[in-house]
Amino acid sequence: MNKEKMKILITGVSGFVGHHFLQYLYDNKIEASVCGIDISEPAYNIREYDGFLSVTYRKIDLLDKESLASLFEDFVPDYVLHLASFSSVAYSWKHPEESFVNNTNIFLNLITAIQTHNINCRILSVGSSEEYGIIDQDEIPLSEDKEVRPISPYAVARVAQEMLSKLFVDSYHVNIIMTRSFNHIGPWQDSRFVVPSFIKRIKEIKDAGYKRGIIETGDIGIVRDFVDVRDVVHAYYLLLTKGRVGEIYNVCSGKGIKLEKIVKMIADEIGIYVETKLCEQLVRPNDNPIIVGNNHKITDELGWKPNIPLETTIKNMIDQGE
Amino acid sequence: MNKEKMKILITGVSGFVGHHFLQYLYDNKIEASVCGIDISEPAYNIREYDGFLSVTYRKIDLLDKESLASLFEDFVPDYVLHLASFSSVAYSWKHPEESFVNNTNIFLNLITAIQTHNINCRILSVGSSEEYGIIDQDEIPLSEDKEVRPISPYAVARVAQEMLSKLFVDSYHVNIIMTRSFNHIGPWQDSRFVVPSFIKRIKEIKDAGYKRGIIETGDIGIVRDFVDVRDVVHAYYLLLTKGRVGEIYNVCSGKGIKLEKIVKMIADEIGIYVETKLCEQLVRPNDNPIIVGNNHKITDELGWKPNIPLETTIKNMIDQGE
Repeated sequence: MNKEKMKILITGVSGFVGHHFLQYLYDNKIEASVCGIDISEPAYNIREYDGFLSVTYRKIDLLDKESLASLFEDFVPDYVLHLASFSSVAYSWKHPEESFVNNTNIFLNLITAIQTHNINCRILSVGSSEEYGIIDQDEIPLSEDKEVRPISPYAVARVAQEMLSKLFVDSYHVNIIMTRSFNHIGPWQDSRFVVPSFIKRIKEIKDAGYKRGIIETGDIGIVRDFVDVRDVVHAYYLLLTKGRVGEIYNVCSGKGIKLEKIVKMIADEIGIYVETKLCEQLVRPNDNPIIVGNNHKITDELGWKPNIPLETTIKNMIDQGE
Repeated sequence: MNKEKMKILITGVSGFVGHHFLQYLYDNKIEASVCGIDISEPAYNIREYDGFLSVTYRKIDLLDKESLASLFEDFVPDYVLHLASFSSVAYSWKHPEESFVNNTNIFLNLITAIQTHNINCRILSVGSSEEYGIIDQDEIPLSEDKEVRPISPYAVARVAQEMLSKLFVDSYHVNIIMTRSFNHIGPWQDSRFVVPSFIKRIKEIKDAGYKRGIIETGDIGIVRDFVDVRDVVHAYYLLLTKGRVGEIYNVCSGKGIKLEKIVKMIADEIGIYVETKLCEQLVRPNDNPIIVGNNHKITDELGWKPNIPLETTIKNMIDQGE
């Protein structure tokens, strides 16, 4: 029997999560025809993933409706993993309107193009733990049914995307599954993010021959829920293929860790002693002291669980550059 | 003493509410310098309002950041009444992305231009009762603290605008006051809206010489909260000048009325007998049976109350064309 390969569209394929999702498909020998789109070419070689997979890249801006239309004339996906996003909270404060356009509007363009072309597919709309916003400490760990009270333009755009997803599910029966994804970390992550930036600076101290050093940080007393990106892409694959349409799923470890503990883990692994110094400029104006998610919904429904311990993630991140 | 006139910017001045707001300022002999902007020229003559007022019109698209910047170089408002909007629910289903752009993005452009020019003003951000969305009947009349569950792209855009307003208040101390405005009706309203369309068609029957007739309608069993636009603009003036920054105010009559009752009131006033016939195409897919607001917040805090009885509004609407 000549079963046709599943077809997967990945938006934002050039990013950190897009790269890991391809790696996941490859490692799990999933037979699929993948079209990855992005506004900039992947910095990794997509040819490495050929085999069970066939991967093509197309440079497409989701704001450009015409090229989106031409995409769907050539490629009719069974699954759409919508990763494309301007996901920086800080950027969204500087350029709120751009942040909106590059989250909400690109999502609307994608969904309406799929509707216009009458494509029957399942779509994973990736959201953020930032949507929760103002949190009472007795609401920790955060469940999906908690009311959202976003506190950045980025978070408002994500809430809008989620509300729109629900509308399209309810009114047009578009098959959308939604996530609220917590902080993900792992190899290949850009050093602008907090954990890679700690690693980079602590390595630099070691590489300069010192046994001890000081790094400047923001508020490292805050507690966050970190989940390895390789666990995240596993969750995304399960949600995309088996998640319930119209539902929102937290993607998180369910465990909180203080940033200062992470600094210590990195320093221990690298083998030097590190002190931290608070830099006021790195402290965010309205940060929550604790953000930890409840992952019972996805674990109960889909059997997903985070498999990679934080120690392993950090070790892998330290080792990747060597 | 040469007191400087207050300066008011009205966005969407060419619309129904913009026109009535000017009329309100004029009738109440409020001394003000008004700049009205819109993408299309007013169909009424702004010169009629000269006197205590000085009114100028500028054709400005809020999506055009450059002309917005040049506006604020010439005109530094003390008050901004932000009426500009694509406010059709039906249109938002056909063109969700446009609806977003013309609600959320124009709002963001306006606020960021005001910030960039360091203008110290009070802004009224007009929202909609549509934001409430899915309603349990025991939540009627709706209070401002009810959780919003929007059920159209238009409503999501309004919720996003309101969430963004709160952020700008909390994080940048921009002086924004917000409304959730219920159905407004009154003279000069476009006949695409429900009550003027009833009036138009019932008048046509009378004008054709009949004593009785039939009109096709959507579901007229639904209950809505109608407030006269002249009461609305009074509320907007009070909110703009005295409302509490960062707060949301329902603008509504607090009373529910069935649309079928309105049909009867119009027919009685016009003096003919009208039957109605349900037209499936006019029935909305996900309409709430009852939407009625609670106006205690604005009545208690600002002493506003709706002054014009529905009978008078309808009589005025019928008489306007004669």
